[in-house]
Amino acid sequence: MAPITFYTFKTPNGYKISIFLELLGLQYKVKNLDISTNVQKEPWFLELNPNGRIPTIVDHSTGITISETGAILQYLADTYDKDHLYSYEHGTKEYYKYLEILTFAIAGQGPMQGQANHFSLYAPEKIPYGIKRYTEETKRLYSVLDLYLERSKGPYLVGDRLTGADVSVFGWAAFANAIGVDLEQFPRVWTWAKLVAKIPEVQKGLAVPEPRPIHPGLI
Amino acid sequence: MAPITFYTFKTPNGYKISIFLELLGLQYKVKNLDISTNVQKEPWFLELNPNGRIPTIVDHSTGITISETGAILQYLADTYDKDHLYSYEHGTKEYYKYLEILTFAIAGQGPMQGQANHFSLYAPEKIPYGIKRYTEETKRLYSVLDLYLERSKGPYLVGDRLTGADVSVFGWAAFANAIGVDLEQFPRVWTWAKLVAKIPEVQKGLAVPEPRPIHPGLI
Repeated sequence: MAPITFYTFKTPNGYKISIFLELLGLQYKVKNLDISTNVQKEPWFLELNPNGRIPTIVDHSTGITISETGAILQYLADTYDKDHLYSYEHGTKEYYKYLEILTFAIAGQGPMQGQANHFSLYAPEKIPYGIKRYTEETKRLYSVLDLYLERSKGPYLVGDRLTGADVSVFGWAAFANAIGVDLEQFPRVWTWAKLVAKIPEVQKGLAVPEPRPIHPGLI
Repeated sequence: MAPITFYTFKTPNGYKISIFLELLGLQYKVKNLDISTNVQKEPWFLELNPNGRIPTIVDHSTGITISETGAILQYLADTYDKDHLYSYEHGTKEYYKYLEILTFAIAGQGPMQGQANHFSLYAPEKIPYGIKRYTEETKRLYSVLDLYLERSKGPYLVGDRLTGADVSVFGWAAFANAIGVDLEQFPRVWTWAKLVAKIPEVQKGLAVPEPRPIHPGLI
């Protein structure tokens, strides 16, 4: 049995975790939950995650079951990146900058781009107010990320090291084109996103459980 | 000079931080930023937080400047709660449950209830689809919190200890009535919210920088 069971689907939040699992070189067994069938709302899955959403991991080697993308990324870094190849040591300035940007990604970028997706692509009614509100806010958030990158001392969001903050931002950035947001309009974000997209483990993660088309020009 | 400068306003996210500062017994100087004037988008504040939003703290004793509510709560617990009165030790099962629920609060409950607020109270157009979408999702999220409480081994979200997860959920729960969500419909959430609301430091935090009416029946 692989030490980690990973419940996921081909969504931005799912890819964030598969990418980080690949970066850390961890063995994991994929359970592909087709959320269009609502399997994630069945009682057996609500036992694992009362919110009924992917991603969720069950780590058989530690006995930890954990959901919520940002929490999973922190758990994996704490547990499996003791040499800080993809994280910073707790308590350092870099660690708290990482935590700030990771939180920005999961509490701002993700929810807002997710709502832009909903109004632009999935809502049964066409509601111009909703499309505009969330698309504009998503663009503003990418301009904030451009500022974060301008202030970084290296090519990644926090210095010279790829962390869960980069992975989390990238998970949604890779699909910004779906709502008509052209990442090339944010020069530092664009340079950064191409750098991240080139990493072999990132490309492997984007194929779990199966690939979907990403922003043109990234790879 | 107080060791912490706290930039805030009378919003759910602002109160989360003032409550946690009070619980930890920290000295702080309040900078009340009236966000209706867009002062939080001025260059001097963007230097502190490129996202131009409150809350932000500057901790003069550590040299750390940090934004994003969930990140600030983690920073304060790590730095000032070494005895774990309001937190769990890193690496424990309780710690990761705390992290999961904190993340649920800042990435789910907050953004969704925030959008319900927008469509119900502030949007210049009345858009029934938006009101319904976000009010229903907010109710669903309180039913998830009811499940989290059912599974907890104590009266708080994670066992017998109030943590940043409780504070974060409470910050929005205290104002659920503003969008017509009656917390009494979620029996475990209601019992829990009344317990949290009774804590003197929580009441002190709810008065910083100034109070606003909370859910009837809570205190």
